[in-house]
Amino acid sequence: MRRELQVALDRLPLDEASHIAGAVRPYTNWIEVGTSLVKEFGMDSVRQIVAAADDVPVLADMKTNDNARYEFELAYDAGAAAATVMATAPDVTLDTCFAVARERGATVMVDLLGSDKARRQTVLGRYSDGVFAVHVSKDAQESGGTRSELALPSGTRRRLALAGGVTLGSVPRLAQFDEDLIVIVGSAITKAQDPGAAARQFARALDAGAAT
Amino acid sequence: MRRELQVALDRLPLDEASHIAGAVRPYTNWIEVGTSLVKEFGMDSVRQIVAAADDVPVLADMKTNDNARYEFELAYDAGAAAATVMATAPDVTLDTCFAVARERGATVMVDLLGSDKARRQTVLGRYSDGVFAVHVSKDAQESGGTRSELALPSGTRRRLALAGGVTLGSVPRLAQFDEDLIVIVGSAITKAQDPGAAARQFARALDAGAAT
Repeated sequence: MRRELQVALDRLPLDEASHIAGAVRPYTNWIEVGTSLVKEFGMDSVRQIVAAADDVPVLADMKTNDNARYEFELAYDAGAAAATVMATAPDVTLDTCFAVARERGATVMVDLLGSDKARRQTVLGRYSDGVFAVHVSKDAQESGGTRSELALPSGTRRRLALAGGVTLGSVPRLAQFDEDLIVIVGSAITKAQDPGAAARQFARALDAGAAT
Repeated sequence: MRRELQVALDRLPLDEASHIAGAVRPYTNWIEVGTSLVKEFGMDSVRQIVAAADDVPVLADMKTNDNARYEFELAYDAGAAAATVMATAPDVTLDTCFAVARERGATVMVDLLGSDKARRQTVLGRYSDGVFAVHVSKDAQESGGTRSELALPSGTRRRLALAGGVTLGSVPRLAQFDEDLIVIVGSAITKAQDPGAAARQFARALDAGAAT
């Protein structure tokens, strides 16, 4: 099984986010431009992080709910290699995101946040070429919510991404997933004294977990 | 029953959106900074439209799914009088949006897009001080989807907003709503030869409908 690291840049001034992107670049598989950066700075945030990320692919966390073609073309035109759509969006919106991604040879990540079990099973069945983000929301974390959002249909064989509150200490618990996994880490890296060193530690921990 | 007009600025260069905001300002109750402007230009879009809108209140169509306090404070700090959250977001996210709005004396619009009937009844019951946007998505419009998204629980007494494909010709059909209604009009005004004149026509048609 494969483990990839995605460093999420969120709630940061844009120059600081770009600086961190440059620092973590040698150690990470993906760099994410968080929704907070997209909404505060627009596509300038994606363009700047893409430049700082050099050859590391960038995911734009668009969290699209509607207007799929316009939003996904914005993201891909700004240089993103992947963009996110909400699982709770209408089917036609998801279909359009995947159509645009196929035209561009790009990736769609489907954010399962807020979706119920029936909806999850629908989207997991329908979009076999997607990456599915199992997302424990910041708001749920901050209010001490449980990790019940992690419940996935059994027997699912999809590329998964795990977001929300991942720390070095919680990496061993990822062994419960035998799928290929993109592990999304935010403040545990971006708020570290040395984000580059923190990213390297996470990359090593994930490699060690994948080898066992 | 009250009818208010909200002009939605979407998929436009920012200077053109500001120009239209100035032109429609005398005839509209609300000006909306659409999600496409938020994601393309960030909070600069809200600040510029707020300046152009003068005394007309501005709604930022944030379509928040998570990270509620940060996103809503971004919008209100940029001068918005109202911001949107998705009905499909977790309860804690909606709770936080309403808490921030109450701190600021601002408005929350809950976008019902993608929510099922059970979720609608939950949010309509829980947030009596919200405005609820019944949204026919652009993607559903473009694929010729039906207006089934208009189905509302019977006996609902809430402030409603109706978005998606409203034209002068469809204004008489709004008589089916005996609630106070914010009518959201996008391209029928923004793509008109004279957006100011088009907004005036909509305002008059809504007044006429409200008087019958």
